[in-house]
Amino acid sequence: MKRVAIEFSYDGTDFFGYQRQNDVRTVQGELEKALERVFKTSIQTYAAGRTDTGVHASGQVASFDIPSERLSELDIRNAINANLPRDIYVKKAWFVHENFNPRYEAKKRIYHYFILNSKSNDIFLRRYTWWFPYKLNVEAMREAATYLVGEHDFTAFSKRGEDDTNPIRTISALRILRLKKDLILIRVEGISYLRGMVRSLVANLIKVGTNQWKPEHILEVLESKDRSKSAGLAPAHGLFLYKVLF
Amino acid sequence: MKRVAIEFSYDGTDFFGYQRQNDVRTVQGELEKALERVFKTSIQTYAAGRTDTGVHASGQVASFDIPSERLSELDIRNAINANLPRDIYVKKAWFVHENFNPRYEAKKRIYHYFILNSKSNDIFLRRYTWWFPYKLNVEAMREAATYLVGEHDFTAFSKRGEDDTNPIRTISALRILRLKKDLILIRVEGISYLRGMVRSLVANLIKVGTNQWKPEHILEVLESKDRSKSAGLAPAHGLFLYKVLF
Repeated sequence: MKRVAIEFSYDGTDFFGYQRQNDVRTVQGELEKALERVFKTSIQTYAAGRTDTGVHASGQVASFDIPSERLSELDIRNAINANLPRDIYVKKAWFVHENFNPRYEAKKRIYHYFILNSKSNDIFLRRYTWWFPYKLNVEAMREAATYLVGEHDFTAFSKRGEDDTNPIRTISALRILRLKKDLILIRVEGISYLRGMVRSLVANLIKVGTNQWKPEHILEVLESKDRSKSAGLAPAHGLFLYKVLF
Repeated sequence: MKRVAIEFSYDGTDFFGYQRQNDVRTVQGELEKALERVFKTSIQTYAAGRTDTGVHASGQVASFDIPSERLSELDIRNAINANLPRDIYVKKAWFVHENFNPRYEAKKRIYHYFILNSKSNDIFLRRYTWWFPYKLNVEAMREAATYLVGEHDFTAFSKRGEDDTNPIRTISALRILRLKKDLILIRVEGISYLRGMVRSLVANLIKVGTNQWKPEHILEVLESKDRSKSAGLAPAHGLFLYKVLF
């Protein structure tokens, strides 16, 4: 028995989210099917983060135990890839200590959210960006972002149904970058997040970007701890779990 | 009655090619369905080029007659887009003279072929690039390309079943560009092409890029006018009809 970690990417478009469920296609389900084909036994996996339906990953991390002692890290990567569907891909596999669990050992999770901010749509980006055709005041969004960085009660930026969870989270960085004239990246760094939190942060920042809200209004929403004051969720398909750091 | 031209893009992945056919989803079929919904009458369209199954377009051009005299160019664009599926998008609509037909008036058709030349796959590019993980000698490919530019009999680089067509075509430019470390663009400019010709040129250039053939061997293939000497076709999903010039 050896414990293995993998870093992998997936296109969330055609999955009902990350977590295994009966009767629907999920990332974890497809991954575990591939592992069963490779190792001829049922294998349970543990991931750094459970992404929602439609959310992508370029650097998700999972760990699992394999019965084989002979395979190299590269053999493992290649064998899993040969058994995965075209929308999941293992970039790297490596051996880890026998208690490694990416969920508990992740030191940082970085999410990327892409906005196509152009009057004209680009259909080749439609699966991976939120097309938002109205003018955005990126400077105002950056100012609003400063109120969100740090340790806060993020209840106002979470989904319903998480009321048992401790709502205190720490955002260590929140940057808004114009990658090209019409492509905006919102990059969020934190240790962990409430459910729907990144998409909620994006939706609220957009309210500022369109000048419907002043930047300071974000602070009011944060301090209210009240979801009904918040702007809802940005669409899932712009969001990527970009990288997990250990 | 007014004649309109449109420039439009489509993601070829989920179409059985451009040309309308009964019982299968085609680009022309979906476009004409949208036009019928907008103008409440059946409308026949004429396109600059008929792309094969799986081939994309970022700048296809088509023309058609509309019964309305009132709509502006922007109204027409927006009304068609509101009725198209998510994988076709009209970038521009404009009025043209009553005999305009993009097939006969095109002065240049530019195709782009994208190769992801990296050991590791990038699943977010999988629909739009050919993943070719082996080392490519781009300098040798550029040398081979020089033999193809100009007016030639391109029979060796065509699909079967075109034997009634005049096989003489002119390639005015054939450039091989490294856009990033691992992304290669093959850009072909010509007036018109034989069926499958761009994908065949790419497949033959790859034979040179992998050093299986010397650059001069491309000239032998060209002069043979014999398909059996040729390297077949590169996959459809790397190819884009990029732009049509009039």
